[in-house]
Amino acid sequence: MDVALRRGWSLKTAFPFMISRRTLSLFWRCGAGTPWPPAPTGQRGAAAPRRHAHSGASEGTERSPGAAPERLPFSRLSQEDLAFFRETLPGGAITDPDLLEAHNVDWLKSVRGHGELLLRPQTTAQVSEILRYCNDRNLAVNPQGGNTGLVGGSVPVYDEIILSTALLNNILTFDPVSGILTCQAGCVLEGLSGYLEEQDFIMPLDLGAKGSCHIGGNVATNAGGLRLLRYGSLRGTVLGLEVVLADGRVLDCLSTLRKDNTGYDLKQLFIGSEGTLGVITAVSVLCPRKPSAVHVAFLGCQTFEQLLGTFKLCKGMLGEILSAFEFLDAACMGLLNTHLKLPNPITDCPFYIVIETSGSNSAHDEEKLHSFLEEAMTSSLVTDGTVASDDTKVKALWSMRERVTEALTHDGYTYKYDVSLPVEGLYQLVTATRDHLGSRAKNVVGYGHVGDGNLHLNITSSGPDPSLQGAIEPFVYGWTAGVRGSVSAEHGLGLKKRNYIYYSKPRPAVALMGHIKTLMDPRGILNPYKTLPDDLD
Amino acid sequence: MDVALRRGWSLKTAFPFMISRRTLSLFWRCGAGTPWPPAPTGQRGAAAPRRHAHSGASEGTERSPGAAPERLPFSRLSQEDLAFFRETLPGGAITDPDLLEAHNVDWLKSVRGHGELLLRPQTTAQVSEILRYCNDRNLAVNPQGGNTGLVGGSVPVYDEIILSTALLNNILTFDPVSGILTCQAGCVLEGLSGYLEEQDFIMPLDLGAKGSCHIGGNVATNAGGLRLLRYGSLRGTVLGLEVVLADGRVLDCLSTLRKDNTGYDLKQLFIGSEGTLGVITAVSVLCPRKPSAVHVAFLGCQTFEQLLGTFKLCKGMLGEILSAFEFLDAACMGLLNTHLKLPNPITDCPFYIVIETSGSNSAHDEEKLHSFLEEAMTSSLVTDGTVASDDTKVKALWSMRERVTEALTHDGYTYKYDVSLPVEGLYQLVTATRDHLGSRAKNVVGYGHVGDGNLHLNITSSGPDPSLQGAIEPFVYGWTAGVRGSVSAEHGLGLKKRNYIYYSKPRPAVALMGHIKTLMDPRGILNPYKTLPDDLD
Repeated sequence: MDVALRRGWSLKTAFPFMISRRTLSLFWRCGAGTPWPPAPTGQRGAAAPRRHAHSGASEGTERSPGAAPERLPFSRLSQEDLAFFRETLPGGAITDPDLLEAHNVDWLKSVRGHGELLLRPQTTAQVSEILRYCNDRNLAVNPQGGNTGLVGGSVPVYDEIILSTALLNNILTFDPVSGILTCQAGCVLEGLSGYLEEQDFIMPLDLGAKGSCHIGGNVATNAGGLRLLRYGSLRGTVLGLEVVLADGRVLDCLSTLRKDNTGYDLKQLFIGSEGTLGVITAVSVLCPRKPSAVHVAFLGCQTFEQLLGTFKLCKGMLGEILSAFEFLDAACMGLLNTHLKLPNPITDCPFYIVIETSGSNSAHDEEKLHSFLEEAMTSSLVTDGTVASDDTKVKALWSMRERVTEALTHDGYTYKYDVSLPVEGLYQLVTATRDHLGSRAKNVVGYGHVGDGNLHLNITSSGPDPSLQGAIEPFVYGWTAGVRGSVSAEHGLGLKKRNYIYYSKPRPAVALMGHIKTLMDPRGILNPYKTLPDDLD
Repeated sequence: MDVALRRGWSLKTAFPFMISRRTLSLFWRCGAGTPWPPAPTGQRGAAAPRRHAHSGASEGTERSPGAAPERLPFSRLSQEDLAFFRETLPGGAITDPDLLEAHNVDWLKSVRGHGELLLRPQTTAQVSEILRYCNDRNLAVNPQGGNTGLVGGSVPVYDEIILSTALLNNILTFDPVSGILTCQAGCVLEGLSGYLEEQDFIMPLDLGAKGSCHIGGNVATNAGGLRLLRYGSLRGTVLGLEVVLADGRVLDCLSTLRKDNTGYDLKQLFIGSEGTLGVITAVSVLCPRKPSAVHVAFLGCQTFEQLLGTFKLCKGMLGEILSAFEFLDAACMGLLNTHLKLPNPITDCPFYIVIETSGSNSAHDEEKLHSFLEEAMTSSLVTDGTVASDDTKVKALWSMRERVTEALTHDGYTYKYDVSLPVEGLYQLVTATRDHLGSRAKNVVGYGHVGDGNLHLNITSSGPDPSLQGAIEPFVYGWTAGVRGSVSAEHGLGLKKRNYIYYSKPRPAVALMGHIKTLMDPRGILNPYKTLPDDLD
């Protein structure tokens, strides 16, 4: 079923496939208009007040709360240390600055660290030896997966040792009866997806960075992505973890059971803690069966209220086969057209929706989707649309949503916000930010996961602009806190957002997080300067 | 669609509706054959060695690891304490022994405490005042929901103050767009279900005890139940919690957002910690839409291998509409016939399956179910069966699975085991236990949640029998540990199973649990003697 709902239109254009972040990164480095060095954050030695007042800052008058705090008194790497690591990891202790470069800079090129040593262990025992040594020697460590994070959590801030999971990349077991996969932490998400598809299963998560992100990093950052609406978060689908603690002890919670109520669920501590409590070395995850039928509809609406009406109708009429409800605004479409030459598959509208259904019976799914679309068109919720079930066209329609991030990087320097809001008010923040910034911003765009109440608000400018940032940041976070939203829905806090935590969490909760950090990593060697704010109680 | 698959049979009998645990409890107290006082565990002053060797115990030669340890040196309740509580909770501080009786004994009547004070707060602020006082005075507290737990976690062991959530029973908010419900912890599950059904939603969990269990207790014990296969565990569906910590501080993590990656997910600590880390006072939970079509099939198989084959077929053919796959064995059916006079709706078979589908389009679901049943019958996986979609008959078929627990209580004293196992070997433990015990047991029966790999193994005897228990316990736990199963899938550890934790969790993990307990409840006043073993490292 590949249907253009508007008469005369059809999906003639073969859209290019989505490219991986790794590919994109290489390509993008040669492009124009990318500021370098770009960010006001993460510069070596950039000292922010260690105790930062998180609110009430007037625009642009003080150092950004996302800037690096002073270097903590960790040991400096010595020749004896290097000798130890070279002996422990023959060939896996890298000091060549050229090879280190890609590991010191984040994907957005907004944060740069100065790590002088990259370690590439292949076994959990090696990770254990490394951490035991680092803890004894008070050497700071930056655990790193695919380095696709967006909040400066995945690269060193100063000279932390980079501990890469890249060579922990073996699939350990897969049980086709239960659908439970066990693998090492450095397996690339796309590789796992490919492996599972051959066995008629899929990963319960999918995201734009799949070509380079590691499953361990996904778990450490509690990645959300495109399938959360259907399969839930990693907190439900991850069944077990193997983790190396700061002092080198190995915590084996690598259960492959759907239910286990024997004591506290320790693995949850590591999910979403961004490598600050332990290094994840292996993961077991519950994988759904591959749906035999997938359909994608790309629809246009005149107002956000109509988009919400479409969402409500869709939840009722598509029910259990609805697997994604994503949106982008006209400004995003403009960037796709301009920078990636992706044509709009339907007529121009203020808002666009990507709906995906996944089911076990194609005829049933088509019937449900057809009834829904008929109702949505008849009731004037939707102005125009097109539907695809062919794999190539499904991917092409999805790319209109997935490649917005890439299009933004071509538009200039991008300030990225990833917030959870009550779904009814999801777009109001985009409008309010646009009004608030006026002509100071180049573009203010909104897209994201309507089904999860998750907005990606992005603001571009021709280059890094501290005054623009100052105008955005208290404003966006304050607005979000005002509706009890979250200032980080799925990206985490990392370095850049750590000091904004109080907009979403009360002080006693943050204080307890600090106590847990101290309990589990008393010397604070694991991913310092990340996740927790500078002014812990 | 109400179809008897075997020619000539139809669902003539109106099965009685499932009764709530509260009703059952009242009824059952008057019944015969119920030992009282029954259990070798939980007797006042029964002193077990404080440091227990968890393995290698020879059968029946030493005190059961489930017995109460010595009373810890908490303060005794004074007249001043009583005066404080009476002032803080006018009318809500109860000392009448008759009124306390039902709160001191668990539902199975296997554990009896001697609490002398029952507190019934109505607000979070009152819970906070109570805990602050108890912490200062070193008074132990037993948080209690509906007291439907099966592992002795919900009643005092000695003279702990019983802190009931019964009057924290208000629904706070419900958003019909997002399906997010916020309520106080003492709301009864069945009441919440009724409230939601009126608004076309359902709770994401359902269990036999729904008539009396509290949502706060469900969360505190990470209850599993009958809908986990479809909607996942509470770790995914609970979005937020309000918790009062041991020292009276209120932790507000009552988020109503699907996604929130701002720091560590503290609420997960409380889910499944059985009231040992804090007292849950309010919950927000993501509720699914009420399915417009529900069908139930009751099927019979000749072997467990055929049952597993049916499960595999069913997952493929029913896909997204499968909402439960439960089983019971012929011995369970015998107990239903004998003790509850429930006739077998199909011909006698060694194994029975309850399959439920829930979907948004009845015609589609019927078609899928019909194709599946045809294939299951044709390929001789299933011998006989019946299907229902009418609400009364659906409930009647479900009662064949839900009332097994009740039938067991009429069979004599019951030793209950709730284990997670790899699904392929799920029934082998029942057979092995039957062989191992021979004529020492009255009945050895197996039932449970095939879809979740969760077996309920129950062994009855004419009365409490320490030598029988000694023959079962190392055996069942050792067998489970041998296949990397969990010795408590959904019931928790409570008092009775705390010392068996090492069969499922490595020592470093249990030690870390102990450190977290000490961090959050330094004086250990919250639900002492529960969840964590006596010999913490």
